[in-house]
Amino acid sequence: MQYPTTIQNLIECFKKFPGIGEKTAERLALYTLNLDPEMVELFSNSLEDTKTKIKRCQKCNNLTEEDLCLICKDPSRDHKKICVVEDPRNIISFEKIGTYRGLYYVLNGLISPLEGITPEDINLDQLIQRIKEEEIEEVIFAVRPCVEGETTTLYISKILSGTKVKVSKIAHGVPIGADMEYVDPMTLETAFDNRIQVS
Amino acid sequence: MQYPTTIQNLIECFKKFPGIGEKTAERLALYTLNLDPEMVELFSNSLEDTKTKIKRCQKCNNLTEEDLCLICKDPSRDHKKICVVEDPRNIISFEKIGTYRGLYYVLNGLISPLEGITPEDINLDQLIQRIKEEEIEEVIFAVRPCVEGETTTLYISKILSGTKVKVSKIAHGVPIGADMEYVDPMTLETAFDNRIQVS
Repeated sequence: MQYPTTIQNLIECFKKFPGIGEKTAERLALYTLNLDPEMVELFSNSLEDTKTKIKRCQKCNNLTEEDLCLICKDPSRDHKKICVVEDPRNIISFEKIGTYRGLYYVLNGLISPLEGITPEDINLDQLIQRIKEEEIEEVIFAVRPCVEGETTTLYISKILSGTKVKVSKIAHGVPIGADMEYVDPMTLETAFDNRIQVS
Repeated sequence: MQYPTTIQNLIECFKKFPGIGEKTAERLALYTLNLDPEMVELFSNSLEDTKTKIKRCQKCNNLTEEDLCLICKDPSRDHKKICVVEDPRNIISFEKIGTYRGLYYVLNGLISPLEGITPEDINLDQLIQRIKEEEIEEVIFAVRPCVEGETTTLYISKILSGTKVKVSKIAHGVPIGADMEYVDPMTLETAFDNRIQVS
């Protein structure tokens, strides 16, 4: 005995998503019955549209429905600065703050000698070429603070060392509002190493 | 700055589901981009099909694509027994065990004087009428062990008290395999009250 086929299919679909197991998939699939028909139609259409219409920006790999993303197309932004991130989601996070007015570049991954990921694998040439061609003034790395992130940052900064391009990375340290006793030792060490002179 | 409209729509749709917040909805919507096109199509179609094709069984309120559910239509089952549950999901749970061969009835809710839910509100007449008309021999209550569940069970057993119909409820007590120290006091009390003589 199973659910009717359509529900069973829907359960299987929900299960394809990360973090959704059998029970949650079941709950979500059955909840669909409670949604308004218009909402289900929008959901159904959005799924197909997302899969068919969304592509990567030709310039920065951000998600977009057109060739260039809204940020790359915006003439009011500072086209001399590139903030390098790992994931399109990070762009949204930075945009929510709203203070950075430069452009972005989404990496296809991070250099990882352990996993055999080389600069060629993640197409870093495209970024380096863009930095040189567009006379970028500053490249700001905003990738995860990990060995792979550091390696990637270092790799690009070395290639650009002969040029006028300024390479920076966002500060790593104790988060604002954090309870000091819960901050992990690695973060504390980094915070100590990167301490800023106050007076 | 937001995601492209289609993704934003998809995020909003995922957020309609229980237990899915902003961040999870974002993660799920973006994960859609990684799924196979066939899977997204199946997902999209299953959503619409579930909403349009699935209805309640005319006899027992179970989920079905036809007028009667597979269980009610099965002549090999014991049509003299009805197991009363709260949710179609419970039927799946019992069917997985596979020992019960009677029929089911899914309640539309439980009687709750506190919330103002009366027997009329949850259409209990339909169940009582069916029990009488179909000469049911046993009604087994398998609802949550709570005040509302007890009230509903008691209400129906009182109505059927003059008849030959046997009314029972599933046993409540310490779950099999449970660590005694983690069993809550209410369950322990119930388990004591319902103790079974061994010798």
